[in-house]
Amino acid sequence: MAGSSFGNIFRMTTWGESHGKGIGVVVDGCPAGLLLDEAKVQAYLDRRKPGQTRYSTPRKEDDVVEILSGTFEGRTTGAPVSMAVYNKSQRSKDYSSIAECYRPGHADYTFDKKYSFRDYRGGGRSSGRETIGRVAAGAVAEEILKELGINIYAYTRSVCGITIDDSRASRENIFKSPLFMPDPVASAKAEEALCKRMEERDSAGGIIECIVTGMPAGAGEPVFEKLDANIAKAVMSIGAVKGVETGAGFGVAGSSGSVNNDCFYNNGEKIIKKTNNAGGILGGISDGSDIIIRAAIKPTPSISRPQNTVNKTGDNIKIETKGRHDPVIVPRAVVVVETMVAAVILDMLMLSMTSRLDLIKRFFSL
Amino acid sequence: MAGSSFGNIFRMTTWGESHGKGIGVVVDGCPAGLLLDEAKVQAYLDRRKPGQTRYSTPRKEDDVVEILSGTFEGRTTGAPVSMAVYNKSQRSKDYSSIAECYRPGHADYTFDKKYSFRDYRGGGRSSGRETIGRVAAGAVAEEILKELGINIYAYTRSVCGITIDDSRASRENIFKSPLFMPDPVASAKAEEALCKRMEERDSAGGIIECIVTGMPAGAGEPVFEKLDANIAKAVMSIGAVKGVETGAGFGVAGSSGSVNNDCFYNNGEKIIKKTNNAGGILGGISDGSDIIIRAAIKPTPSISRPQNTVNKTGDNIKIETKGRHDPVIVPRAVVVVETMVAAVILDMLMLSMTSRLDLIKRFFSL
Amino acid sequence: MAGSSFGNIFRMTTWGESHGKGIGVVVDGCPAGLLLDEAKVQAYLDRRKPGQTRYSTPRKEDDVVEILSGTFEGRTTGAPVSMAVYNKSQRSKDYSSIAECYRPGHADYTFDKKYSFRDYRGGGRSSGRETIGRVAAGAVAEEILKELGINIYAYTRSVCGITIDDSRASRENIFKSPLFMPDPVASAKAEEALCKRMEERDSAGGIIECIVTGMPAGAGEPVFEKLDANIAKAVMSIGAVKGVETGAGFGVAGSSGSVNNDCFYNNGEKIIKKTNNAGGILGGISDGSDIIIRAAIKPTPSISRPQNTVNKTGDNIKIETKGRHDPVIVPRAVVVVETMVAAVILDMLMLSMTSRLDLIKRFFSL
Amino acid sequence: MAGSSFGNIFRMTTWGESHGKGIGVVVDGCPAGLLLDEAKVQAYLDRRKPGQTRYSTPRKEDDVVEILSGTFEGRTTGAPVSMAVYNKSQRSKDYSSIAECYRPGHADYTFDKKYSFRDYRGGGRSSGRETIGRVAAGAVAEEILKELGINIYAYTRSVCGITIDDSRASRENIFKSPLFMPDPVASAKAEEALCKRMEERDSAGGIIECIVTGMPAGAGEPVFEKLDANIAKAVMSIGAVKGVETGAGFGVAGSSGSVNNDCFYNNGEKIIKKTNNAGGILGGISDGSDIIIRAAIKPTPSISRPQNTVNKTGDNIKIETKGRHDPVIVPRAVVVVETMVAAVILDMLMLSMTSRLDLIKRFFSL
Repeated sequence: MAGSSFGNIFRMTTWGESHGKGIGVVVDGCPAGLLLDEAKVQAYLDRRKPGQTRYSTPRKEDDVVEILSGTFEGRTTGAPVSMAVYNKSQRSKDYSSIAECYRPGHADYTFDKKYSFRDYRGGGRSSGRETIGRVAAGAVAEEILKELGINIYAYTRSVCGITIDDSRASRENIFKSPLFMPDPVASAKAEEALCKRMEERDSAGGIIECIVTGMPAGAGEPVFEKLDANIAKAVMSIGAVKGVETGAGFGVAGSSGSVNNDCFYNNGEKIIKKTNNAGGILGGISDGSDIIIRAAIKPTPSISRPQNTVNKTGDNIKIETKGRHDPVIVPRAVVVVETMVAAVILDMLMLSMTSRLDLIKRFFSL
Repeated sequence: MAGSSFGNIFRMTTWGESHGKGIGVVVDGCPAGLLLDEAKVQAYLDRRKPGQTRYSTPRKEDDVVEILSGTFEGRTTGAPVSMAVYNKSQRSKDYSSIAECYRPGHADYTFDKKYSFRDYRGGGRSSGRETIGRVAAGAVAEEILKELGINIYAYTRSVCGITIDDSRASRENIFKSPLFMPDPVASAKAEEALCKRMEERDSAGGIIECIVTGMPAGAGEPVFEKLDANIAKAVMSIGAVKGVETGAGFGVAGSSGSVNNDCFYNNGEKIIKKTNNAGGILGGISDGSDIIIRAAIKPTPSISRPQNTVNKTGDNIKIETKGRHDPVIVPRAVVVVETMVAAVILDMLMLSMTSRLDLIKRFFSL
Repeated sequence: MAGSSFGNIFRMTTWGESHGKGIGVVVDGCPAGLLLDEAKVQAYLDRRKPGQTRYSTPRKEDDVVEILSGTFEGRTTGAPVSMAVYNKSQRSKDYSSIAECYRPGHADYTFDKKYSFRDYRGGGRSSGRETIGRVAAGAVAEEILKELGINIYAYTRSVCGITIDDSRASRENIFKSPLFMPDPVASAKAEEALCKRMEERDSAGGIIECIVTGMPAGAGEPVFEKLDANIAKAVMSIGAVKGVETGAGFGVAGSSGSVNNDCFYNNGEKIIKKTNNAGGILGGISDGSDIIIRAAIKPTPSISRPQNTVNKTGDNIKIETKGRHDPVIVPRAVVVVETMVAAVILDMLMLSMTSRLDLIKRFFSL
Repeated sequence: MAGSSFGNIFRMTTWGESHGKGIGVVVDGCPAGLLLDEAKVQAYLDRRKPGQTRYSTPRKEDDVVEILSGTFEGRTTGAPVSMAVYNKSQRSKDYSSIAECYRPGHADYTFDKKYSFRDYRGGGRSSGRETIGRVAAGAVAEEILKELGINIYAYTRSVCGITIDDSRASRENIFKSPLFMPDPVASAKAEEALCKRMEERDSAGGIIECIVTGMPAGAGEPVFEKLDANIAKAVMSIGAVKGVETGAGFGVAGSSGSVNNDCFYNNGEKIIKKTNNAGGILGGISDGSDIIIRAAIKPTPSISRPQNTVNKTGDNIKIETKGRHDPVIVPRAVVVVETMVAAVILDMLMLSMTSRLDLIKRFFSL
């Protein structure tokens, strides 16, 4: 229970440090029969790869995934799918500055407090590279969801305080923007603001939005295992996330019941909701409309400006983080949010299969 | 795994429906030796009791808790603490309107979709009365935390769009305000706005803030069992919550690294952070400063205005919810947020006891 | 995680002490739609009730179960089923002998070591009365299994060293024997031996066997969540059990592969095994033949002969347990084994529903 | 929850198939500060390596372990310890016989029933090679236990029906016997019997005993998470195990209370038990005496005699398993039992650290 596993039925267990031998994940509970190969998973990993635009670190990381178990003749077998991304070269960089001091906004201090020492190379276990395991596992989940007619996509909603205008946004635009913003006008403005931030040797945060379409009603368990509660945990567990909301989110605080309530309506074909302030979840259970989640991502803590901090011996010092870092991690985190949401959705869907005795009976007479 | 349990070591399991025989909780993993009696738990439950001010439903609910197991001679024994609040009278009200139709903003529709039928009396399992079990369990956690020098308090930060001004707020004011707002000026304004909302037969939402003081560094596990991730799940699992944030929360999205990073500083006595945008959590692990959480609560979905919806047979209808309901549930939810946070903090603290081999060795030689 | 919960999807959480206010259980994960009332559960509880024959304690315990939640209009709703058996009178017996000394074969010593004190009234949490919660929960599982065409029965295979002869045994005889032995000849002999043991103020142990018929192939997960591994845990967790085996059990140790291997055979209708040394489980997964489990039950530790032991202050003393106790608990434990096995079988069956992507797809298009 | 993880706090997750790319394990919850390198783990793995004596398969498997994460500068960091044994060459053997038919005593049939197809190469996920991951993880647990003064050892108690005589047995003899039998006389006899079995192209089973010394009282949780219940699950989850018992085990069935009860005794220094029929566990909690466990291992199902079975298309056929196989797997399973027991003991010890509020308070003031 040291926290490296996530999920109930579809369960991922990640391992690895930034500058160790590699990063990996074991996916247990993957149903048998899914067509799966490295290329499918790699496509997701490539979306979090650095060095693709000027807004991410120019470090060259060829994160090539290898499937070590759980597939046979191109399909998953029901056995755990172990995947690894080996680090090409274990860099013999000079980490003495990180080793001896506590970088503001990083986990150096808390790791030392918790474990009495830490693997300081590149952030060790608390590095953003840890998300490689999440994305590989979540990619498998997302591929399964596609088979069930459920699609998930995520994008950048806001960067540097510049927010998209939904009326200008379209899903096709997402991958045209280096920031994965679906509104070209906002994307251009945000790029401009970001460039300025970079000139100031500073960093930026933003908001990621994630949408799930084709969702059946009935996923999510009442009380503690609500669908939104599990999504909140999954998303908040991603390194730089400081807030999570569904549907109208924090906007509900100032709203009124008459405005915020989504009225049901029979459109002749099926029951829909006229609005979706609930974000597709009522009482913790999916209601059949799109699921809507947003996550707030903090500005990259590594900045090249000098900062005040203390070192291990308790002296007040000034540090300057060398090397170049992502001025904003939002674009690279988009796929992380998307795949974590996929993992939760799949897990809760599978859990929901045992809600009704009549359906269990039917299942066993299939 | 149908979702009625929460926690790893300190684990609560709730049961009961709004208008059934009662509501209860079993707390497993409560350490032996805590002084505990009904009065201690009742004090927490009384804070969520309705009918105390004009801003909560005038329904009379004498929620009297009974401890059924797990204590002996005034102390917890290590055995599960079972607590129940029996419903005084199983009301034979007329529920036909709820039984046959799907109230907007409620879980009627999703429960029917998930289970094919539901206990419609007063919302059944999805009623706000479900939180009685949470509060009773979390009260036990909070009492244990006090023994460890950790204090938790929560209050209303915003109602009807009226937000407190921190410079005017003080902890003593919380219980002087019928809305549990620590800023008297904001509280008065919010009451006014709320009265207007009530006249309009409408309802209001708000924001609850929760603070944990005296927190040691080192609680929370890296990657998936981060302290903030578990808090996010705990808080988001409370009925009307649509968003959760820690520290600067959604504010980080527009901030910059140089502003958002909390610099460490040795004040001569100990290492502190000059600011607390992180909300006391770095890399998912408590850093020793105060933990800060906020939750967005949606407006009460039950309003007495007529609303459009559908009934079970799929007809588009208009409903008017009879009876009086809380125009805002924020004040009553304050103690729910507080006690759920307490449960998580205790659970993660206990989990953190096995992080270091040297401390385990010392423990077994105590 | 203090151990009062069992199961993954179908999950029971028990509470209560022998002489406290009552004993109860919360069953979470019970699918909606099962016809359930108190009478159904009571029938199972009555099988463990004392005072029915001369071989069980004449204490009068009218263990009447009450369903507190989770049913509506006669059916389970999917919400947790809370059940309680309230203790009629909290007896003000004199427990000073138990309070101050460590009874051999009981958990007095280990509870004191673990918790520093204990509820000594009638054994407190470690009393056999704790199994009331298990039986009530397992009864629900067994009722669900019946709906799926799966039947479970258990009986006494051996008492006082007298073992049934399978050629004389029949299922109908089980309830005709006060010891629940299906072989009338062995039952008579065992009764005789037991009477002698009682005259000697001593107690006896025995072996319980449990059979599951109508089991589909495919339940049980490879590696750690094997069906037999979970059954072993479930059965070994029952108070007096000191050994568990499946199929040929410990008999395999002296056997050979050519004898122990069960050959598969197509009888024209379906694939069967000509023998069942595997006890219906291969590689941890049910193979479609009957599941066979046996449990060894130790002699009741409470005997009225004087025994050497120590008291709380460490003095070597002699104790004599007063009152009358079951000379053998095997007959009363039969239903406990049966219902615990039922709970595991149901849980593993429900878990097995997500093994194959093609079946998941079919389920969601039902 | 597909079953590849085991443990609560100290938690192992295994992956890999017999003839896939490799076998591995991720150990989560390993406390920081343990001196750990590959050599330490390898020593355990070498004890299950085949080809060491004439009683194990002459297949050459150089199972060399690699630590991929979780250590830094020679010590564990608290991060997951990922370990892998890569298969040297993915053999392109002819598996057509296994692929098309169901070997008696193997999991071929049940895997096909559960997943609709299987990785048939060398048994795939259900191969005995799966235990590599268990041994590597359990080795880490055993090394930690040594630091706490707890020692575990296991040996062969019986093979081919030949059982050791405790009066002749000594721990030093274990590794002198090719069968790991601590009684040289029994070992010689068992070897003889085994040779005969091999000539008959048949296989043998046996019994493994495991002893835990230096165990503190208080580990194990009441009711469902009893120490013996968790050990039973751990041991029964090992491939060929068909029975588990603690202390007097199945022997209790014919015993009496006066004989079976272990009397407590203060020997002037501390409280001991004069006998240990309980196997060191009372009420599911360790009592401070040695823990004693026995497991029954079935005869190797792979024998070179012709056997009747069916193939995938349902025809009754005769198969002859080619190649050479272990005539008895007991000796190689000794270290598997030992390390699985170690994993449970450590896990339950760590869980027991939160039993008492006073000790929790002391821990946090350390």
